[in-house]
Amino acid sequence: MTMTPIEPAMTVERIAARAKGASRTLAVAPAAERDGALLAIAAALDAHAAAILAANAEDVAAAEGDVAGGRMTRALLDRLRLDAAKLAGMAHQVRAVAALPDPIGRVLARTRLDEGLELHKVACPLGLLAAFLEARPDAVTQIAALALKSGNAVVLKPGHEAERTTRALLAAIHSALRGRATTPADAVAMVEGRAAVDTLLGLEGTVDLVIPRGSNALVRAVQARTRIPVLGHADGICHVYIDAAADARMAVDIVVDAKVQYPAACNAVETVLLHTDAAPRILAPLLDRLAGHGVEVRACERTRALARGRSLTPASDDDWSTEYGALIVALKLVGCLEDAVEHINRYGSHHTDTIVTGDPRAAAYFLGRVDSAGVFHNASTRFSDGYRYGLGAEVGISTGKLHARGPVGLVGLTTYKYLLHGSGQTVAAYTGPNARPFRHEALD
Amino acid sequence: MTMTPIEPAMTVERIAARAKGASRTLAVAPAAERDGALLAIAAALDAHAAAILAANAEDVAAAEGDVAGGRMTRALLDRLRLDAAKLAGMAHQVRAVAALPDPIGRVLARTRLDEGLELHKVACPLGLLAAFLEARPDAVTQIAALALKSGNAVVLKPGHEAERTTRALLAAIHSALRGRATTPADAVAMVEGRAAVDTLLGLEGTVDLVIPRGSNALVRAVQARTRIPVLGHADGICHVYIDAAADARMAVDIVVDAKVQYPAACNAVETVLLHTDAAPRILAPLLDRLAGHGVEVRACERTRALARGRSLTPASDDDWSTEYGALIVALKLVGCLEDAVEHINRYGSHHTDTIVTGDPRAAAYFLGRVDSAGVFHNASTRFSDGYRYGLGAEVGISTGKLHARGPVGLVGLTTYKYLLHGSGQTVAAYTGPNARPFRHEALD
Repeated sequence: MTMTPIEPAMTVERIAARAKGASRTLAVAPAAERDGALLAIAAALDAHAAAILAANAEDVAAAEGDVAGGRMTRALLDRLRLDAAKLAGMAHQVRAVAALPDPIGRVLARTRLDEGLELHKVACPLGLLAAFLEARPDAVTQIAALALKSGNAVVLKPGHEAERTTRALLAAIHSALRGRATTPADAVAMVEGRAAVDTLLGLEGTVDLVIPRGSNALVRAVQARTRIPVLGHADGICHVYIDAAADARMAVDIVVDAKVQYPAACNAVETVLLHTDAAPRILAPLLDRLAGHGVEVRACERTRALARGRSLTPASDDDWSTEYGALIVALKLVGCLEDAVEHINRYGSHHTDTIVTGDPRAAAYFLGRVDSAGVFHNASTRFSDGYRYGLGAEVGISTGKLHARGPVGLVGLTTYKYLLHGSGQTVAAYTGPNARPFRHEALD
Repeated sequence: MTMTPIEPAMTVERIAARAKGASRTLAVAPAAERDGALLAIAAALDAHAAAILAANAEDVAAAEGDVAGGRMTRALLDRLRLDAAKLAGMAHQVRAVAALPDPIGRVLARTRLDEGLELHKVACPLGLLAAFLEARPDAVTQIAALALKSGNAVVLKPGHEAERTTRALLAAIHSALRGRATTPADAVAMVEGRAAVDTLLGLEGTVDLVIPRGSNALVRAVQARTRIPVLGHADGICHVYIDAAADARMAVDIVVDAKVQYPAACNAVETVLLHTDAAPRILAPLLDRLAGHGVEVRACERTRALARGRSLTPASDDDWSTEYGALIVALKLVGCLEDAVEHINRYGSHHTDTIVTGDPRAAAYFLGRVDSAGVFHNASTRFSDGYRYGLGAEVGISTGKLHARGPVGLVGLTTYKYLLHGSGQTVAAYTGPNARPFRHEALD
């Protein structure tokens, strides 16, 4: 078994240019060959398991020093650590991506402009992705698989804690791709070191999309340093609004699920807005249930006045725009539905917000006016997720409005081009006093 | 008739915030009310004609001094000048936008996640647009109409030469909107002065999309100064590649149409690539026809050697990446189809490129590999246009790959949100060993 030679002399620009070149070939690779490459990668991950786990052990050993020295959290170390079962799960995930429907080549629209002049709008890959990862080996194989499936090349920049593991994973991936004409090994590349980050983020015109996978701080740092489009979201400040006409038990169940089920998730609730008319019925059971789950409540003045006898932390203005990612929730009384919507549009992060109400008119108002990627009625914010939405695979969640919004599946890694099939037509013939008319006949 | 008070004391931030507020109302305005507002605006343009033409005469008088002083071109002055017929045409265009199908509220996908848990992906407005215009009064009413039709508010920044005209146009628009509850007058706003540009371009989170309408220099300046997404293209470097298997007459007709029919258009051809095998048949008639239309040809060394006896300007490397926008074309011999595609992907602007060939395999290779918004076979590059594509109205042409690519219709001013209609569901119920399964049933 030959290892892929890592060429330390290759510049980041050269690595990206070669990957971009490979993306041209990949763009026209038939679906069967892209899927075949993914199955070969999955097999190679199994075959290279010993080398990958050995490299990972070295990364983990080095990171343990960082944990001991307080430079790294134990949670991060746990994410970095691989074992045979986790690696087998990664290979399984690559096979699952191979089994998804092909996102490329779909004809999105066909128009007959005139006899012998047909316009086809066809889904195609973006070209070259740049993925910034932290200490997550599983993200390496997942992003590589999603890229190849969607006909895109990718340059990966792992966190420095995961460099040895990533090199070993790429050796396995390259061994699977080598010799495949339509899915070349250059299509999955890796760069290392801090300097590579700025170089890669400056390659407008070569890199088509940047994907940061990691903490809010990583996403923010990437967004601030590039003009290339970034797929991702920095914040997840989600709300549950409990309307005057809310069912008490449903409201409490939804808040508890949205806060407690997985508090670190971006779609967990951070602020609960409670209609003053509902407070007499709902505040006490809500606080009881939250207390039972060990949730700290930071409450506005009026809530604290109503809940005298309980020790609620006073909320400051900062609480309305804080993503706790922990068992903490902000709680505010609002006088009306309109105030709730205004609060959400002002302080939220346009991610996911829910209204709990039995009043269909209040629900329609909320769904129409809240400016977020997900706006829910009587359901937990935690449903905002590519798997739960049935998208097949989640590339990320976008709080931007352009291109892709909300949970993004493979389609988010595609664009389209207009292919015009003519027979010698000139525009002059369709212009002026004797202009030939267009037919503009939709063919679908 | 009362004039809209222009409040010079309002800051750009305040104007944008009010427009954003108006966008929330507009987002839920029924289509009939948005269309009604457009018809009222068209009527107001007719009713205010005298005031608008008087304001325009002042702008034109001031601009004539600039033309005399060499600070402005005559072509720009012609664009600035309005007359009764041109103004009536602008009103007609607003009525035409009203007649287009509604781009808002379409259900793009419906999925039953489970009994009583339905996910709807619904088209909705972006929110607030910022449009940067030069001395084009017709762009003011067109952008305002497209914005209102798509449920978006808009802040317009006209070129300083058109400020008086724009104020008069906005007075007419506001008189039509005043008193309409769902399409408030704040939804179409205007800012003036150089300082306003940077302020507006810095309003991330308030402005959702920037639309520059004007010269390449304007587009580039706007792109360089904002992190808000920009809809537009700076360059239009389009190619015609004449393959070995091209029909000579078709090739010459297409090149002449693409260069001569409207040389200033962004979809006009700038570089012709000619296969060496086709040169003996096609070079002479091509040069004859181009010369007959007064087109200057800048040719590569090999072309000049083949065309000895003709005085062709030698092409420098810069010519391959120059948008002439005039009766000039660059001409290069290429040895094979692959070289043509590589040249286009390297020097082009990813706008529109054509292959002329009778060989379907060459066409398929070209259409698959050229990385441009429009890739054509046997048709003029000039077909790349929203009207010719049948999009109804053209918001702009995008050479970016994200969100919208190529000619962009009203759909480019929309995004979508995911609306989840539940009945109290929590994620916990769908998690763990006794997880309820999702149904993920497509309802369309």
